[in-house]
Amino acid sequence: MSNILSIGAGVMGTAITIPATNNGHNALIVGTNLDKEIINSIKEKSYHPILDVQLINTIAKHNNEMTQEDIDKADVVVVGVNSQGLDWFIDYVKKFNIEKKKFLLITKGMYVNDNNKLDIFPNKILKNIDQDINITAVTGPCKAQELANKNLTNICFVNEELDIAIQISNIFKNNFYIINTLSDLIGSEASAALKNIYAIIIGYSQIYYSNNKKIFNPESALFSHCLNEMNSLVVSMGGRTDTVYGLSGLGDLHVTSGTGRNGSLGKFLAKNKKYSEIISNELKGETIEGALLIQDLQIFFQQHVDIKKLPILNNILLSICKDQKLDVPWSDLNI
Amino acid sequence: MSNILSIGAGVMGTAITIPATNNGHNALIVGTNLDKEIINSIKEKSYHPILDVQLINTIAKHNNEMTQEDIDKADVVVVGVNSQGLDWFIDYVKKFNIEKKKFLLITKGMYVNDNNKLDIFPNKILKNIDQDINITAVTGPCKAQELANKNLTNICFVNEELDIAIQISNIFKNNFYIINTLSDLIGSEASAALKNIYAIIIGYSQIYYSNNKKIFNPESALFSHCLNEMNSLVVSMGGRTDTVYGLSGLGDLHVTSGTGRNGSLGKFLAKNKKYSEIISNELKGETIEGALLIQDLQIFFQQHVDIKKLPILNNILLSICKDQKLDVPWSDLNI
Repeated sequence: MSNILSIGAGVMGTAITIPATNNGHNALIVGTNLDKEIINSIKEKSYHPILDVQLINTIAKHNNEMTQEDIDKADVVVVGVNSQGLDWFIDYVKKFNIEKKKFLLITKGMYVNDNNKLDIFPNKILKNIDQDINITAVTGPCKAQELANKNLTNICFVNEELDIAIQISNIFKNNFYIINTLSDLIGSEASAALKNIYAIIIGYSQIYYSNNKKIFNPESALFSHCLNEMNSLVVSMGGRTDTVYGLSGLGDLHVTSGTGRNGSLGKFLAKNKKYSEIISNELKGETIEGALLIQDLQIFFQQHVDIKKLPILNNILLSICKDQKLDVPWSDLNI
Repeated sequence: MSNILSIGAGVMGTAITIPATNNGHNALIVGTNLDKEIINSIKEKSYHPILDVQLINTIAKHNNEMTQEDIDKADVVVVGVNSQGLDWFIDYVKKFNIEKKKFLLITKGMYVNDNNKLDIFPNKILKNIDQDINITAVTGPCKAQELANKNLTNICFVNEELDIAIQISNIFKNNFYIINTLSDLIGSEASAALKNIYAIIIGYSQIYYSNNKKIFNPESALFSHCLNEMNSLVVSMGGRTDTVYGLSGLGDLHVTSGTGRNGSLGKFLAKNKKYSEIISNELKGETIEGALLIQDLQIFFQQHVDIKKLPILNNILLSICKDQKLDVPWSDLNI
């Protein structure tokens, strides 16, 4: 029997514990400061109010209640916050002794590192925590609600030390949570982060070209062009093409473009609204990972990437960061 | 002003003439023996009854009315039949003098050639026509109805002699028909044919894993696994990975899996019906390109391909050719 500690009680931080608890393992879910109602609900009735599921083998604590013993008992610590919560997470866990702990990272994002290079979140964590920890990333197509409902989900656990990914996967895997293991951490994490940006323009294409009925041709073409750009970026960072076109990139962009807030932003942009208007009205207060990421990386992209070779990214950047009208640069996409 | 001759008056053979006639060029549409009503409708009122569009700059003839002069005047001859019509097409055109003619091929399929190798349709045509002709293939995501309605469509014209693809594309391209040109004919044609097979299981996944509401996770994972298998097959034939993941493969599988008869077959298979039942009832009389292709290639796949490395293809084959229950071999898909 293993013990899972998940820090972050949102939909994904909770959903990932469900295959493990279903396998008979125990979960402790610790809330961020935004999760107080969720934690109270789990404490009182083992019920997650957003996922609308009953949890088994699970207890919950507010973050001021977690002890060193909780950490010591944990076989795996899930990083269950969103990209905006990562700095909080780092500050929070580094106060504990986490030496030799194994982390499972579901947060997706990238950052510009001290050498002014595009880098992946696992390196941000390692850089900012002065203890010897090990990180396995979870990537691939997963809507949290579906996983929470035990719908079949096939994702990747990724670790440069493949045996650790395999070892952790044994706790979680079962007939509804099918885990592929791979070692291309850069490719997986970069794909997972970048797909949030490209999902914006896929959402745009679903509305912009349709009038009364759904139109398929432009979205399908754009889907392949977006992956081609993602591949250039990921390969330039040292990731692999087969990862981009595997579950971590293609699979995740596919699931994300069907639903989700990045796509919703694109759909509003397709109605000729400006980003600044949408974010103050229709999507006020929402975390839109793709928009946050391109804002974070804006200066880097402008200074260090040949943006002419990434015309789709460039147009998304101008739309989000400069409030320009979004369009698909079809004539520049001759692949 | 150029003259387009399209042989085959079905939805695709007609739709592809529309960007050209919209550009001011002339089209002659010649029907197969199945197209008599369509040809009469175009003759009488310039109206295509299946596409429900008015045609401009277009005349129509029954196939017994076409003359050598019609061929001589044509700058491009569109091969506008489906895969089952290709043998008829070859017999029909080779009675004319077609020396040095340029053909534009929209028919998708593969066959086993005299050397017992998997081969693409352009080579079947060249092999069976004893005249010097040149073939450009059209691949990529295109629902004919959308093109006919002048919705934005981005596809490829493919010719190993790239300058010929570019020359022909100049007749057709405009602001709603965006043509990329490339030279990987094997990769494009093999991808375009194989996607019909894999679209069956994508359709299956859209129904099999859903109950009352649409479920996304399994379909998105399967989509990337299908492309991975397609890539192995296409590369083994001499095609390129970037073609598989470009418009010809990924883009076309994406558009096809949204709609279409291959997907419909998969949806019926997901309801635990056998192929033999479906084809005698719900889909009686329909041309299901993916099912026809896997039946044509069944013996080849079984004898010459390591089917264990293509577990999805194997399961589709067993379902279509041996009437077995279709399932997704998740545990064999560790990429």
